[in-house]
Amino acid sequence: MSDLSTIEARIECIKDQKKLIKGNKIEETKLANELKALNLERAAIKAASSNAEQCDSQDVKKYTLKVPKGTKDYSDKEMAIRERMFEKITAIFRRHGAVTIDTPVFELREILSGKYGEDSKLIYDLQDQGGEICSLRYDLTVPFARFLAMNREHQNFKRYHIAKVYRRDQPSVNKGRMREFYQCDFDIAGVYDPMIPDAEAIRVMVEILESLSIGNFSVKMSHRKILDGMFAVCGVPADKTRAISSAVDKLDKMSWNDVRKEMTTEKGLDGAVADRIGEYVKLKGGKELCAILESDSQLSQNKSAMEGVHDMALLFSYLELFGVADKVVFDLSLARGLDYYTGIIYEAVLLGSDGNFLQFTIISVLVVYPKIETSGVGSIAAGGRYDDLVGMFSGGKKIPCVGVSIGVERVFAILLQKEALSKVKSTHTQVYVIGIGGLLHERMAIVRELWDQGIKAEFMFKVNPKLPAQWTACEREQIPLAIIIGSEEISQKIVKIKDMRVKEVSVTEAKKEVIVSRSDMIQVLKEKLESF
Amino acid sequence: MSDLSTIEARIECIKDQKKLIKGNKIEETKLANELKALNLERAAIKAASSNAEQCDSQDVKKYTLKVPKGTKDYSDKEMAIRERMFEKITAIFRRHGAVTIDTPVFELREILSGKYGEDSKLIYDLQDQGGEICSLRYDLTVPFARFLAMNREHQNFKRYHIAKVYRRDQPSVNKGRMREFYQCDFDIAGVYDPMIPDAEAIRVMVEILESLSIGNFSVKMSHRKILDGMFAVCGVPADKTRAISSAVDKLDKMSWNDVRKEMTTEKGLDGAVADRIGEYVKLKGGKELCAILESDSQLSQNKSAMEGVHDMALLFSYLELFGVADKVVFDLSLARGLDYYTGIIYEAVLLGSDGNFLQFTIISVLVVYPKIETSGVGSIAAGGRYDDLVGMFSGGKKIPCVGVSIGVERVFAILLQKEALSKVKSTHTQVYVIGIGGLLHERMAIVRELWDQGIKAEFMFKVNPKLPAQWTACEREQIPLAIIIGSEEISQKIVKIKDMRVKEVSVTEAKKEVIVSRSDMIQVLKEKLESF
Repeated sequence: MSDLSTIEARIECIKDQKKLIKGNKIEETKLANELKALNLERAAIKAASSNAEQCDSQDVKKYTLKVPKGTKDYSDKEMAIRERMFEKITAIFRRHGAVTIDTPVFELREILSGKYGEDSKLIYDLQDQGGEICSLRYDLTVPFARFLAMNREHQNFKRYHIAKVYRRDQPSVNKGRMREFYQCDFDIAGVYDPMIPDAEAIRVMVEILESLSIGNFSVKMSHRKILDGMFAVCGVPADKTRAISSAVDKLDKMSWNDVRKEMTTEKGLDGAVADRIGEYVKLKGGKELCAILESDSQLSQNKSAMEGVHDMALLFSYLELFGVADKVVFDLSLARGLDYYTGIIYEAVLLGSDGNFLQFTIISVLVVYPKIETSGVGSIAAGGRYDDLVGMFSGGKKIPCVGVSIGVERVFAILLQKEALSKVKSTHTQVYVIGIGGLLHERMAIVRELWDQGIKAEFMFKVNPKLPAQWTACEREQIPLAIIIGSEEISQKIVKIKDMRVKEVSVTEAKKEVIVSRSDMIQVLKEKLESF
Repeated sequence: MSDLSTIEARIECIKDQKKLIKGNKIEETKLANELKALNLERAAIKAASSNAEQCDSQDVKKYTLKVPKGTKDYSDKEMAIRERMFEKITAIFRRHGAVTIDTPVFELREILSGKYGEDSKLIYDLQDQGGEICSLRYDLTVPFARFLAMNREHQNFKRYHIAKVYRRDQPSVNKGRMREFYQCDFDIAGVYDPMIPDAEAIRVMVEILESLSIGNFSVKMSHRKILDGMFAVCGVPADKTRAISSAVDKLDKMSWNDVRKEMTTEKGLDGAVADRIGEYVKLKGGKELCAILESDSQLSQNKSAMEGVHDMALLFSYLELFGVADKVVFDLSLARGLDYYTGIIYEAVLLGSDGNFLQFTIISVLVVYPKIETSGVGSIAAGGRYDDLVGMFSGGKKIPCVGVSIGVERVFAILLQKEALSKVKSTHTQVYVIGIGGLLHERMAIVRELWDQGIKAEFMFKVNPKLPAQWTACEREQIPLAIIIGSEEISQKIVKIKDMRVKEVSVTEAKKEVIVSRSDMIQVLKEKLESF
């Protein structure tokens, strides 16, 4: 007898497929019309060109030479920037004792469904080719929760994961929203004393953003329990909490008036209730905001809100010990879209050239905070506590988690703006072996010696390459050292070593070029490379 | 006016979509029937269990907690081994001046189709959710060729790519055949003088396999043009060449008698022709085999074969210069399955404990080579020259390529056998900060100082952790240094630094543990870490 949940899942799946088929029928008419128009256009073009020359490519299949919509290739120079970024981030994850795991790019569809609210429609499905029904992962958090539920020995686990995720969004490539993109997550799972791992997650986020040299930033921080308490004391009906929360979440992009309108007109909230919310979401500041909220006549009566406030006060004390309290603003307008957060939430935003995070510590509360000019970049890192997600997979057995996700694609876009791509060095090559008058065998023998010694070296794949072509290759790849051999060097058992980094005329030739015996070559090269 | 090829592509795309929609209509009836049956079954199960106990997990959805068939999670310890493997390989790719690129995990389906022969049925398709028809990449070579055709500035390009590929194979996980697995490719594209890049590709393969310490190996090598010539002079009809070639390819797994049977019985080859092939595919040896083939009365009359033989002779001379000729066997039984090879082909196999690659240099030709005992691992790296693949995408404009793919999943399986997984250190943590009697704030202040100095450090996320628990955590993660503080240390502004690596009783306590002033702590730690 089949398992009920399997049947339920299959029924859901069939319903989804039937919906798709229905959509396809409407699509069919549109396609037929488009096809007719295209056929006419093709006939016209063919007729126009039929008298023109018959090109020679009879048998060559014509390809649409492109990558799928919302994806892109990364060139060697782009990859050089990306790899440096990933290396910096990885070094900091490791500094905090994190390990990495790997999970498949696709998961059973049921694992992903019901985790992303409205955005579930953006999940990429694999075609049903018989067997299991799978989808590409939408983020790294749900697979991590699934991993924890399956691997009970990892109850206490600090892991990072840098990998691609997939969202069938309408991509606007210019804005950096892609269908395939990297996520870069750090999460701490386990039962610990309150707010200690939370403080480390924020410290990790700050360390990373500082190491990437992308400009000043600030971390907005709030707490789901405070938000819930706030909505309750303002009089938001329980069934509207989620909708009102998602309206609040738009305050970084919309004015309060527009958000208020969405609450009242679209979501049917009482105007007086909205106005009460309006007073709270203005509140921004540092640790002192905790005391103010504790003395708030209404909020202080709400158990959930006060739990959140106590968490925040404790967190602030830990962030001070970790030396990152000045990077953080307690901001009641922060809501975060994802359903699964249960405790503190945070989001790092870039500050405009006039903004300075030092302002945050002196800004008084109860004053609308100056608009952060984010240059259209939006949040560059975000995260929060999600204590219930693992429990969804493990039959209710909780593993509390807190994590942060670095917005690496946005960071990459910023780094790309700052560097002239054409000047990026993408190879690691240290030595280029140049022959005057061919000398292929001699060049090969030298390059072999270099490789044997672990020196990164290249030469030109020609029997008799021209000298200028070899210099150009060496310079184009920004290779710091060249070894030059000619027939004279061969007979005298010497090589010339030229420092290609020195371009200034003022530097003496002696510094630029040294002649060493063949037997000293490796030693001299190693000393030079170490001195760089 | 639109471009004709764009219109043609769009028309093809619409036709495909219409076909799918038609398929979907038939599917719809099937789905409706299945839905009906499932609903009935569900009702039956529910009725049967309605009287049974109402379990306490009312709202908890039951999940099939697993990863999709043919995929797997990699734990932190497995990842530690994998990352070391990838780092070693990457270092060698970079030593040879290679750069990396990234391409999307899925491609337009038309890019992949027609490239993999029979194995095209193993391609994973994405569900048509509207828009383009895409498939998961099957290897990294076809996307590389597509990239080269799209990026003409990269005519000369030495690139590596380490990434996941997907094959909807019937996975036998024990044999290491997965549906999601890594490929690890190095390719040299560009018009160069003959056999020089080919020699570097083989040198790269040998360097990598030696660096991974997985045991002795040998590189079998042959040439497509020699195979083609050999089949021609033996009398294989042109239309049977591919089939006979794939039979020859099985000689590493099957006896000659079985292969001969496949040729004659299954593939209808004349017995005399098969016997002539049988004489050739026995041939194995070193460079001297080139001369023997050149003096072969039949083969020497075949232009294609002689081109291949000259290539091989030149290649051998370059491999000698690169110091890897002793790793290579010229082996006429090597055929390689993939369609796109046009020149030399090669395959590295592990040697059994009794096999030794030094034997290869002294083995005489015309003697059947001793069976290589590969312990079921098969080839661990392979590659060859493919000069026409890029041209398929670029309207016939050729970019010659030669490459090698390291069988990293097989290498990983071997490495995993050699290491006790439980003893693998997966964190990079250097210092664990231990407090006697809680001292959370003091521990946090120290760990912050360490992080600020780039030292990898952890502490226990408890306000008042037990001392043994802290020791255990430090030892379990094999962290080499511990800092210990108690109230006495705090008041005297000192810390204890303990070398946790020293387990021997014979080592004096003085060596194991030093007491330093708080202000010297960083300096002492850095010196110790450098000395490790």
